[in-house]
Amino acid sequence: MALSRAQGVLDELKALFGPRALLSRAAKEVYRYDAILVGPEPLAVVLPESREEVAALVRLARRHGVVLVPRGAGSGLSGGAVPEEGSIVVAFTRMTRLEVDPHTQTAWAEPGVTTARVSEAARPYGLFYPPDPASYRTSTLGGNLAENAGGPLCFKYGVTGDYVLELEWVDDEGGIQRQGRAAYDLPGLLIGSEGTLGLVTGARLRLLPLPRHRAALLAHFPGVEPLAEAVSEAVASGAVPARMEFMDPACAGAVEDYLRMGLPRGRALLLVETDGEEADLVEEELSLVEASARRHGAEVVRAAGEAEAEALWRARRAVSPALGRIRPKRVNEDIAVPRSALPRVVREIEALGKAFGLVVVQFGHIGDGNLHPNILFDPRRESEEKVWELAHEIARVALRHGGVLSGEHGIGLMKRDFMLEAVDPETLGALHRVKEALDPLGLFNPGKVLP
Amino acid sequence: MALSRAQGVLDELKALFGPRALLSRAAKEVYRYDAILVGPEPLAVVLPESREEVAALVRLARRHGVVLVPRGAGSGLSGGAVPEEGSIVVAFTRMTRLEVDPHTQTAWAEPGVTTARVSEAARPYGLFYPPDPASYRTSTLGGNLAENAGGPLCFKYGVTGDYVLELEWVDDEGGIQRQGRAAYDLPGLLIGSEGTLGLVTGARLRLLPLPRHRAALLAHFPGVEPLAEAVSEAVASGAVPARMEFMDPACAGAVEDYLRMGLPRGRALLLVETDGEEADLVEEELSLVEASARRHGAEVVRAAGEAEAEALWRARRAVSPALGRIRPKRVNEDIAVPRSALPRVVREIEALGKAFGLVVVQFGHIGDGNLHPNILFDPRRESEEKVWELAHEIARVALRHGGVLSGEHGIGLMKRDFMLEAVDPETLGALHRVKEALDPLGLFNPGKVLP
Repeated sequence: MALSRAQGVLDELKALFGPRALLSRAAKEVYRYDAILVGPEPLAVVLPESREEVAALVRLARRHGVVLVPRGAGSGLSGGAVPEEGSIVVAFTRMTRLEVDPHTQTAWAEPGVTTARVSEAARPYGLFYPPDPASYRTSTLGGNLAENAGGPLCFKYGVTGDYVLELEWVDDEGGIQRQGRAAYDLPGLLIGSEGTLGLVTGARLRLLPLPRHRAALLAHFPGVEPLAEAVSEAVASGAVPARMEFMDPACAGAVEDYLRMGLPRGRALLLVETDGEEADLVEEELSLVEASARRHGAEVVRAAGEAEAEALWRARRAVSPALGRIRPKRVNEDIAVPRSALPRVVREIEALGKAFGLVVVQFGHIGDGNLHPNILFDPRRESEEKVWELAHEIARVALRHGGVLSGEHGIGLMKRDFMLEAVDPETLGALHRVKEALDPLGLFNPGKVLP
Repeated sequence: MALSRAQGVLDELKALFGPRALLSRAAKEVYRYDAILVGPEPLAVVLPESREEVAALVRLARRHGVVLVPRGAGSGLSGGAVPEEGSIVVAFTRMTRLEVDPHTQTAWAEPGVTTARVSEAARPYGLFYPPDPASYRTSTLGGNLAENAGGPLCFKYGVTGDYVLELEWVDDEGGIQRQGRAAYDLPGLLIGSEGTLGLVTGARLRLLPLPRHRAALLAHFPGVEPLAEAVSEAVASGAVPARMEFMDPACAGAVEDYLRMGLPRGRALLLVETDGEEADLVEEELSLVEASARRHGAEVVRAAGEAEAEALWRARRAVSPALGRIRPKRVNEDIAVPRSALPRVVREIEALGKAFGLVVVQFGHIGDGNLHPNILFDPRRESEEKVWELAHEIARVALRHGGVLSGEHGIGLMKRDFMLEAVDPETLGALHRVKEALDPLGLFNPGKVLP
């Protein structure tokens, strides 16, 4: 961008937003990252405080032909919030209005509200908001909506989009739109579009009554294969656990090294939680899973009470820090495959890791086949190029087995070019037509999702 | 359309589809109707048997600038399948392939499969397909997808779109597309778009394990107001019944006249069914509803066993024939309002009926505030214009109370012009942009949904 034009944009931003529009160079630095990629320095970082400010910003961007990169907490794992040169980052962290309406069992939330805060505000009314991405204490609803985030609870409860009753967003002309889930379902189109079709400024969320009882178990298997078979069998028998997480032996070993909680070595771990209104039923549903697990050679430990259950989930949440001690950097892949294909997929990815000479550990939400193979590496000693090549090969394994490129992290920058392999040209054409219809000037988050 | 051009189209259709493309004038007659409106005679009625035939048809229509009106069983209630002059009706009744995969708990279904058939085919595997529009024995999946159909079970289980894992459709260039629910969610955009964005040729549906136990009750209240309050209270206490249907005293009276099953006169009726894996819990959940009902002055009869429960649901299904005996014709309105607004909405609609001097009865899926006020009339003695004016006023009541134009029947022709009052101009503009992006020539179901 020519300097004089850039200066004109900055002057207008200053007039519109005051000094907070013009973060210093150092302050801007953190807005170059998400949790996986880095981009160039943006032209400016703006922190709007209302839908009207967002609308004014879009009109300004339109006039000057400057692009906008929306951003939540920056905890994304596919580069969706990473800026490009000359862009304005729109950080929604100051739009944090949250209103729970216990009567209609809904909440109105602005995009800067952190995911965990919704359930916290709903709890006094006996309600909760189910989507629970691992980053739920820091991630924001705006980011969750952009990626249509899931989490461990999504096997039973569904993903972010399933809880959106109404969406408000600013369109490419700076108009403020608000629509329920009626024909055409534009909210459904915007959810998961990674900020490329409009800027979300609020959502009416559906809340659910908090389940009164929970029960949990840890099962350890000789390998991933019998584990996956046990899960399939339990689900076929009618069990719908709230959470079903697995770790391969390498991942479980890393967690044990980190926590020293007595997890068995060389075993694949399955963590299961059931929940519901009645204690008996919750225990019975867990027994279905336990029986399947034992039939497939597992040893099973049931958590006696909330405290023991909490310890199990602490193990799951320790995965990220535990892996950080093996190698300083990692690429967290995110694929989803039919549950029946899981044993083969895990085996092929294991073999790929060995062939590439890189450390790969695998864990994920096994209930819906959402797998997170992580490539761990040290950029001082291992080639980053090779790491990305392996990541690409892992995505190909998913596609070969009837799976998809992204379970819950989105396409972003990281998987954009993989889309050419995952989506046929006709459907890709349709996606481009939708983008051109809603954002003909290409103002919103350019370079993401679509190759 | 000029005669010679029309003849050219018919000749090509004949070449493509053989004699079945050219139904006789008498045979074509039934394709002018849905369950509520009539249109002009179409140019032709085609019954394709494969996605490839649908694609060929779209290319033909494109070449000749002829429009296509997709059609399922014609049981729709908003005129969505009603043809316009010179159009080709695409009746999907011969595309009836259905394959249940018990291993993945899914089914692949073509659009001509009737809704009930999916659950029938799934039952041997202990599975079912939850969406259950009242017409589920005749309505087809294609129509259900077009309208994003609900039904009594949708309070607990969700609507058609919640069960679509993957959609296949023919686009405006005759390309066959197939996509899962990833970004951008084009399947979600097509579902509920009433055939205006593409022609659906198949869907991968999610099936659920059949609940092992059910329990039902009938509660009768002095009026709709305490009934609605009891429902709100029960839902707030954590009950999620599978079905919650209500009838106002006029509707209940009509059903009693018809069935003579001993329903009380002058009372508002609530029918509730709970379901689940464990008999105890299913009964306990029903007890929550019963207690709320009694607190609001209801008398409650619990069904003793499946046969008594079935009798209750027979009463609900008898509503349509029962109303047909009061007046020969009816307009079946379909609005959805916040549950808390229901008592006032019912009262205002009652008053409107009196003011217009027309018979209005009300029933619906009270769990999610989906109300079906029916205007009953005799076209020989009562002005149809006045009936439509009243229907419009009823829609306005819904909008005034924060509700929406259509709970489950769609916009179609019938409510197209109401959209101007229901949707703000900016959002309407966005809907038009989406239509133009996916169907720039306006080939698909013109004149529906968008004003």
